[in-house]
Amino acid sequence: MKRKVTLKQIAKELDVSISTVSKALRNSIEISEDTRQKVQAFAKLYNYKPNNIALSLKNKKTKTIGIIIPEIVHHFFATVISGIEQVANENGYNVIVCLSDESFDKEVINMEMLANGSTDGFIMSLSKETQQKKDFHHIQEVINQGMPVVMFDRVTNDVLCDKVIIDDQLAAYDAVDFLVRQGFKNIGLVTTVDYVSVGKLRTEGYVNALNDHDLPINDNIIVKIEDIDNCAAKIEAMLQNNKPDAIFAVNELFAVTTIKLANKMGLKVPEDISVIGFTDGIISQFSTPTITTVSQNGIKMGGRAAKMLIERLEMEEEEDGNEQYRTELIDTHLVHRESTSTL
Amino acid sequence: MKRKVTLKQIAKELDVSISTVSKALRNSIEISEDTRQKVQAFAKLYNYKPNNIALSLKNKKTKTIGIIIPEIVHHFFATVISGIEQVANENGYNVIVCLSDESFDKEVINMEMLANGSTDGFIMSLSKETQQKKDFHHIQEVINQGMPVVMFDRVTNDVLCDKVIIDDQLAAYDAVDFLVRQGFKNIGLVTTVDYVSVGKLRTEGYVNALNDHDLPINDNIIVKIEDIDNCAAKIEAMLQNNKPDAIFAVNELFAVTTIKLANKMGLKVPEDISVIGFTDGIISQFSTPTITTVSQNGIKMGGRAAKMLIERLEMEEEEDGNEQYRTELIDTHLVHRESTSTL
Repeated sequence: MKRKVTLKQIAKELDVSISTVSKALRNSIEISEDTRQKVQAFAKLYNYKPNNIALSLKNKKTKTIGIIIPEIVHHFFATVISGIEQVANENGYNVIVCLSDESFDKEVINMEMLANGSTDGFIMSLSKETQQKKDFHHIQEVINQGMPVVMFDRVTNDVLCDKVIIDDQLAAYDAVDFLVRQGFKNIGLVTTVDYVSVGKLRTEGYVNALNDHDLPINDNIIVKIEDIDNCAAKIEAMLQNNKPDAIFAVNELFAVTTIKLANKMGLKVPEDISVIGFTDGIISQFSTPTITTVSQNGIKMGGRAAKMLIERLEMEEEEDGNEQYRTELIDTHLVHRESTSTL
Repeated sequence: MKRKVTLKQIAKELDVSISTVSKALRNSIEISEDTRQKVQAFAKLYNYKPNNIALSLKNKKTKTIGIIIPEIVHHFFATVISGIEQVANENGYNVIVCLSDESFDKEVINMEMLANGSTDGFIMSLSKETQQKKDFHHIQEVINQGMPVVMFDRVTNDVLCDKVIIDDQLAAYDAVDFLVRQGFKNIGLVTTVDYVSVGKLRTEGYVNALNDHDLPINDNIIVKIEDIDNCAAKIEAMLQNNKPDAIFAVNELFAVTTIKLANKMGLKVPEDISVIGFTDGIISQFSTPTITTVSQNGIKMGGRAAKMLIERLEMEEEEDGNEQYRTELIDTHLVHRESTSTL
């Protein structure tokens, strides 16, 4: 039996990263001559063939869209998939989903696998690790070979392609502006570390809103979370030491976690502290109290992404090489629930 | 450009169902001679080739597992995927996910697409429509050609293959038995229509528990729901007219919906009525009150399913044609929370 050797196996065998193998096979000058030769020799020995998309594309349409997302436990990504499915099915396309589990390597492997004749194009949201590494060669490669990519939510300016995003900065600005207008003056922020693009933008929106209202930016009430499972101590300390009167959290897990910690400390929401979250998922709808939140409209975002990808796929048949990429903004709005009050 | 014609396009062109096309291409005697000839002629004309798995399998392993599930908005399916991913990745396999959206046709199309060289085997949970139609030819076909299938949660006795299930009947029995022991005597049931296999089994567990305690089965407090979006009136009428003192709901959406409707009618949970759900998802954890529920352990179920599939994939290399299929039972237990009290 002849097994096809994979990127991962080559990387393991030669004790280098998957990214290195991938780049070495493409003769990237980022990789040393020695390593390139080793990788290429190994690949040749085991008949590894990097995908030859450009060749296959002209001959065969799969009518399948590949989706690569970081995870599906977040309800937001599940709603985006529903939105993509709807539009894809209406247009006669199937959908295949792969998860990167927030891992750069898994993102590269999945892309490699799907690009190898399984799909006509990609809709994707970047993994945390990819955003941290700023290594997008796998995406650029696929695009260079003529396979369109649409990015949504977690996108990067370093790759030219169609994108669907919300105005994260403006949405966060609006949420914080709302809190200020309700009379709150000591508004805390629970956000992600800066390399997560949407977290960074939402943090900027928070800062801008406070600036515009001449309120000070107080680093003591800004908590940046790397890992949701180990964030309790940081949030508790912030609530305890600085007594914020309101919190803006950049996703719904941060919001519900903040509410639970506040309750544990004897603080009532919204009587003692108001909380606004981001993403209108099922947690926000069913938690106690229900959570006022920025609605992201994942269904609409997915639908738009699918529409953009399909348009590009069908356009390419007529006029190859059109490079006018678009970035579409999806509207957001604040959903008012029980977790906010007026001072 | 030469486009590959799909099952769906043939079906549309000849105005027959996808199932008919699929069967006609396999020369099934269920399909009339005339239709078979038409379909086969059309397929020939457009170079449609049904997947020839047996051939390709021997030559090429994809190291990829295909998952086909009804939907991912239910947190349960998301946790099963996580469980599959973990075990698959540990063993060097990738995972591809497709959704049937509870549609028989989409299940057939997805299976066809993935079986066509993209995966080595399948892990799947049946769509509602497939269970209703009792048409499993697409799955049988794939198995006959030597591609292993593991079914989980929504399974059927009509297909011989490996399966991972919980003992739905026993789990439901235990939940209702618990309610009876707490002193409740007028226990209502919110369940699915009977063709959903797990709903039917959970209903049977409810009936058995009441029988064993010599409590009457009262059809007036049993609500069978076809569509979650249009169930409010039925549940409200049951609560209003029959004043149950406890409710057993066969999934968490039914449980939380029942609680919200009870609240709307001025009933307090658990003071006026106790509620137990099924599936320990995020709704049960964050709803008001938090919901006592049967934990299904999706992670474990997914992990087992992946292990069974991988074992079969690797076994097949040595000893072809081993047909000792197993059905594994995953433990369940009751998670006690705020929605139940003692009388």
